[in-house]
Amino acid sequence: MFIVYIRKKSVPMKSLIVNPPEKGVEIKDVEMVKPTNQVLKIRILESGICGTDREIVNGLMATAKPPVNENYMVLGHEAVGQALEDGVLFHMGDLVMPVNRRGCNKCLNCLTGRPDFCETGEFVEAGISGLHGFMREFLYEKEENLILVPKGIEDIAILGQPLSDLEKSLSEILTVQRRMIWTCQDGTYRCRKALVIGSGTIGILTSMLLRSNGFQVDVVNRRDATDKEFRIFEGIGANYINVGDDLEVLKAGNLLFDLIFDASGSDADLLSKSIRLTKNNGIIGLFGFPSKGIASITHQDLQKVVFKSLIVVGLINGQKPHFERAMQRLAEWKSVWPDVVKELITGTIPVSDSNSVISALQRKKEGEIKVKIIWA
Amino acid sequence: MFIVYIRKKSVPMKSLIVNPPEKGVEIKDVEMVKPTNQVLKIRILESGICGTDREIVNGLMATAKPPVNENYMVLGHEAVGQALEDGVLFHMGDLVMPVNRRGCNKCLNCLTGRPDFCETGEFVEAGISGLHGFMREFLYEKEENLILVPKGIEDIAILGQPLSDLEKSLSEILTVQRRMIWTCQDGTYRCRKALVIGSGTIGILTSMLLRSNGFQVDVVNRRDATDKEFRIFEGIGANYINVGDDLEVLKAGNLLFDLIFDASGSDADLLSKSIRLTKNNGIIGLFGFPSKGIASITHQDLQKVVFKSLIVVGLINGQKPHFERAMQRLAEWKSVWPDVVKELITGTIPVSDSNSVISALQRKKEGEIKVKIIWA
Amino acid sequence: MFIVYIRKKSVPMKSLIVNPPEKGVEIKDVEMVKPTNQVLKIRILESGICGTDREIVNGLMATAKPPVNENYMVLGHEAVGQALEDGVLFHMGDLVMPVNRRGCNKCLNCLTGRPDFCETGEFVEAGISGLHGFMREFLYEKEENLILVPKGIEDIAILGQPLSDLEKSLSEILTVQRRMIWTCQDGTYRCRKALVIGSGTIGILTSMLLRSNGFQVDVVNRRDATDKEFRIFEGIGANYINVGDDLEVLKAGNLLFDLIFDASGSDADLLSKSIRLTKNNGIIGLFGFPSKGIASITHQDLQKVVFKSLIVVGLINGQKPHFERAMQRLAEWKSVWPDVVKELITGTIPVSDSNSVISALQRKKEGEIKVKIIWA
Amino acid sequence: MFIVYIRKKSVPMKSLIVNPPEKGVEIKDVEMVKPTNQVLKIRILESGICGTDREIVNGLMATAKPPVNENYMVLGHEAVGQALEDGVLFHMGDLVMPVNRRGCNKCLNCLTGRPDFCETGEFVEAGISGLHGFMREFLYEKEENLILVPKGIEDIAILGQPLSDLEKSLSEILTVQRRMIWTCQDGTYRCRKALVIGSGTIGILTSMLLRSNGFQVDVVNRRDATDKEFRIFEGIGANYINVGDDLEVLKAGNLLFDLIFDASGSDADLLSKSIRLTKNNGIIGLFGFPSKGIASITHQDLQKVVFKSLIVVGLINGQKPHFERAMQRLAEWKSVWPDVVKELITGTIPVSDSNSVISALQRKKEGEIKVKIIWA
Repeated sequence: MFIVYIRKKSVPMKSLIVNPPEKGVEIKDVEMVKPTNQVLKIRILESGICGTDREIVNGLMATAKPPVNENYMVLGHEAVGQALEDGVLFHMGDLVMPVNRRGCNKCLNCLTGRPDFCETGEFVEAGISGLHGFMREFLYEKEENLILVPKGIEDIAILGQPLSDLEKSLSEILTVQRRMIWTCQDGTYRCRKALVIGSGTIGILTSMLLRSNGFQVDVVNRRDATDKEFRIFEGIGANYINVGDDLEVLKAGNLLFDLIFDASGSDADLLSKSIRLTKNNGIIGLFGFPSKGIASITHQDLQKVVFKSLIVVGLINGQKPHFERAMQRLAEWKSVWPDVVKELITGTIPVSDSNSVISALQRKKEGEIKVKIIWA
Repeated sequence: MFIVYIRKKSVPMKSLIVNPPEKGVEIKDVEMVKPTNQVLKIRILESGICGTDREIVNGLMATAKPPVNENYMVLGHEAVGQALEDGVLFHMGDLVMPVNRRGCNKCLNCLTGRPDFCETGEFVEAGISGLHGFMREFLYEKEENLILVPKGIEDIAILGQPLSDLEKSLSEILTVQRRMIWTCQDGTYRCRKALVIGSGTIGILTSMLLRSNGFQVDVVNRRDATDKEFRIFEGIGANYINVGDDLEVLKAGNLLFDLIFDASGSDADLLSKSIRLTKNNGIIGLFGFPSKGIASITHQDLQKVVFKSLIVVGLINGQKPHFERAMQRLAEWKSVWPDVVKELITGTIPVSDSNSVISALQRKKEGEIKVKIIWA
Repeated sequence: MFIVYIRKKSVPMKSLIVNPPEKGVEIKDVEMVKPTNQVLKIRILESGICGTDREIVNGLMATAKPPVNENYMVLGHEAVGQALEDGVLFHMGDLVMPVNRRGCNKCLNCLTGRPDFCETGEFVEAGISGLHGFMREFLYEKEENLILVPKGIEDIAILGQPLSDLEKSLSEILTVQRRMIWTCQDGTYRCRKALVIGSGTIGILTSMLLRSNGFQVDVVNRRDATDKEFRIFEGIGANYINVGDDLEVLKAGNLLFDLIFDASGSDADLLSKSIRLTKNNGIIGLFGFPSKGIASITHQDLQKVVFKSLIVVGLINGQKPHFERAMQRLAEWKSVWPDVVKELITGTIPVSDSNSVISALQRKKEGEIKVKIIWA
Repeated sequence: MFIVYIRKKSVPMKSLIVNPPEKGVEIKDVEMVKPTNQVLKIRILESGICGTDREIVNGLMATAKPPVNENYMVLGHEAVGQALEDGVLFHMGDLVMPVNRRGCNKCLNCLTGRPDFCETGEFVEAGISGLHGFMREFLYEKEENLILVPKGIEDIAILGQPLSDLEKSLSEILTVQRRMIWTCQDGTYRCRKALVIGSGTIGILTSMLLRSNGFQVDVVNRRDATDKEFRIFEGIGANYINVGDDLEVLKAGNLLFDLIFDASGSDADLLSKSIRLTKNNGIIGLFGFPSKGIASITHQDLQKVVFKSLIVVGLINGQKPHFERAMQRLAEWKSVWPDVVKELITGTIPVSDSNSVISALQRKKEGEIKVKIIWA
């Protein structure tokens, strides 16, 4: 019997390091072991910052945790990189985006490439839970976990990760609604009214996606739209409504909806109010994690859920097919809404400016939609 | 221009009359106009009594109302009758069951035979809202609204109407769950655990239906099972659990479910508890109308809904395809569970015994599953 | 390192032995090794004889072959047995039916319990190719490969295997047709006309299945119906038509169909004729293997396929979910069509009468629908 | 009773006139009645020329016919126009594309906006059968029949009509294949090999669409690729193979396919050859109308169709949802494959150059992909 000592190359690289659930983040050089199995070396070009990163950095995400047997984790689940060598599916120079959730390799959904429906809960998520993330100089990655980024959209490609979650969500909504005829008399969704709660990054991308799919879209928030928001929503043909503290003012205005999408992840009570704003055969999609409040749903509300054939669905995580669709969608938007698309990247920070990077990871600036850290 | 005076035959017949939302019911002879369009004359053989009938009789159903321009309504939405003449689809002597909900003739779902998903809400329901029901000696009915009742199951066919609602409900649940792989490694549903809340008529029929479809079934109620319930649930291979006043004792016992079906329509709070008892990728079906309580769903609960890809769906009304499947199901059960099936009809009352009929319409007897009024 | 010698019990038992692709069959005692993994001991009660068995016995099936490294194969893929011990899912005394096709354990369809769509082609089929069949006294089988046979239908349960293939086929047809609205104005299939080609076992079971699902059914063959066929088709409400040698006489009679199901597996030319008999949005299902002929499909025929959105689909093999549905269907039919069901088992032969068994395996008797070999 | 004489404005306009099934085409001013119902006035900007136009002009399309009670027909079913007034859904100045097939208003598919699956066959097709086409200066059109053309793609938008047919076709193929697991281990279609027969306009657009959806694509024709074709297929990552006169050379090279798409509409015999080139669970899509030949499909071929669960599907006509997707797809391609997209419009002819227009309608030039007539 032979014992083979495999020489794993250890590569030092600049990385953004967290140690959840503890608070804090730092930039330092760490040695990362190159896996010995078939992987592609990738130079990270840019990382996107998202609310989840800030929750981890601020010690607010109880479920975040480093990889097994490690006492730190590289942060980051949104990245665009460049292949530094030829692989089987990719060529040197190709732009790529890594998929962030990886399956349990046990349940049928994971075995068929759909860890978004992992049944064991034993998946890992890069930069969030159980797997090093992408905020580092280099990445060694199996090609099967990579998406090709078309060069024509490299400026906005970083939006592909959050958009993949929304492509998955819309796909799920439309699948669920196929239990009846929910398309209109002309076969499209043009007769359907959607309400998007929240006008942050997710609210904006959701509104764009729903407009692309033909829905009429009202976006609401508790305040007036900023000029930027005004330009974006006008550009895509969506309405913005300031509902103040009470979503139910919409009902007073007799505004009812076929689809309500909670893109705010703020107050649980939005669910009870949403039920009261939903039309027959309507659907309420919950995206993001409410951080406070209680939904007090009366028995009369539930009678409506039954009587109107309503559905409430939890929406999470896009997978490879949704990343691919997200790339196509961004390419589409770049041709159709070039001016809107330009509004979406609101800042870029070179990794060398460590103070700004740390600061951007600690708190969101007013008016921010998507900020990128530039690695190379 | 010609004016044609069409002679509509007016036929007096014994009927069970209500005037919702007023309380009360009486048996009397009413004159009912025979429609002039293509209808089949049917002798009603038996009527089923259901909880909705009692709500109407006891003045508790605010949405019940007589047909337009009438000051009374014939009660009844569960009936087996016999064709008294040859039609196009049916022959004299055929046993038939009328479908109870009729569409709005406007929306796409109604135009395609699916008023269970009526979008305008302008449907009518025999014996409940806007249309005379079936508790009367004769019925004139368009053949398209009739289902053939196989003679081999005439003793239990009256269960076809409630079962049609459940066939529709299960069909909807399975359709919704096809957005992922929800079948087991052997392609069936045998690995799936279902919880049925309530052991009344609907709870029993739901449990039977789920067992037929391969699910593992736990049925719960607040009390011990009656002997009859014990025989039924043992006969079909379901477990009965007395959970007392707190459904969450199941959680203490580490019992979690893939499917939770509220067949009790009692307390809204069952929804919040159900969310806490649901596995990843689980579904909660609401059937029936909770009459009290509030579901207090915390933001942590809603985080679970999102994180676990849960779905909550309102389930109502079976249509013609579901009535047909219900007839097939009853025929199947008669061969597979002959002893269980015999337990389901717990009483028959001749219409001539008017006191007993009125009394049965006012309150449910202990141990009742399905009681029939016999007309002929 | 330990080497464990596992003691496999070798059990002699009477079996029907073939050695495909060589001609011939014999009854003899063979020693069969009991697998050491978790299996249930089953006594075979009865075996069904099917056309495939006869093809193997007569040396006409080129693809038939014994298990790897064996020079003989036990014949038989239709069986009802009885559990001789308690298992996890089954109890001693339970009636069971083994599933006949077993997956490759590699492709996604096999991993999810659907070897009917095996992509590698490396599945095995009991009694046909690569796996010993069920025509023997005892069977050791993993519980996951067994279906529970309801006791109320034990007399006809042997039909469950061929019927499972047809449940799968119909399920596939209806799934494919969901790409449009193919249900009728009342939500059922009652407006759809089906043509079943062939009135053998498969033709009869298909006709019954289509009638159960609401289709109008015409069955055709080249000759007049036998008295038995007449009783069966009248009993289920299907029409029988003698089309002689030319299926296209139906066209002369202006009979066109929404669904054409080739249950004859005889002449390839039936496909070209079927195309000419199909309505807009129609589907042609091919079941069984044509043994002669050429389908000469003109470019005009193909223009029709395109213009009418026709579909031609190859239909094969039912799996566990279809076996379960087949059992339910037989139970349903026993209640709905008790007299028809009695016509279907046309003979039983005790295995002790070896001459009759051999003879029955060599040629089909006139009027035969399903013949059973009785083992115990 | 009142008789209302409605004044229909008759508008003279330059049009391309045919009188099918007679041969010939001419440019002349015709008076066209403005419909009195709600329509939008549109100025036609450009018309696309397609093979069907040439068949009509050359008298080769037997099914082409003018509108009822008219002795001529305006040609053209591919057009981009501009709204000359504000409507309900569109604004003055919007670019629009009219949908070419209009439903029968009777069958369920047409009532739900899907005349591509018209069941009565009583639909009309602009410029082809029963409805005036779009090769004229102005169009009065109901807004429901119009698609918004994003301004960013106006240069290639004319491709939207043929592409809508292909979006519908692919949607149908993927729907049909959902009867099994046909996605790969990573949830995409990247493991699937597609063969596109023909490298004309349809072959090119199909290849692009399949590449966008992740398929591996081989395109075949009887000759070497032109330089333009080479650039296009290299640009999108598809392989081009010269198969000469015999498609089955692919089999010799052991090339088998999951999806075969006949984009040539040439010889019926390609079907028989395609069957022999298809993998397990494969699908063959027929698009376009073979104009010659016979598919001689042997009984061995049909055995394969059954054994391998193959499917053959006729693919025709995109509807409004597919036009919308086609616009999105063109917008995507413009960002992703800007150089390829530039190759697709191979000529523009001002309508004033009547000789060139007539000539272009009579025969296809070598190397042509899409030629546009410019109206304004």
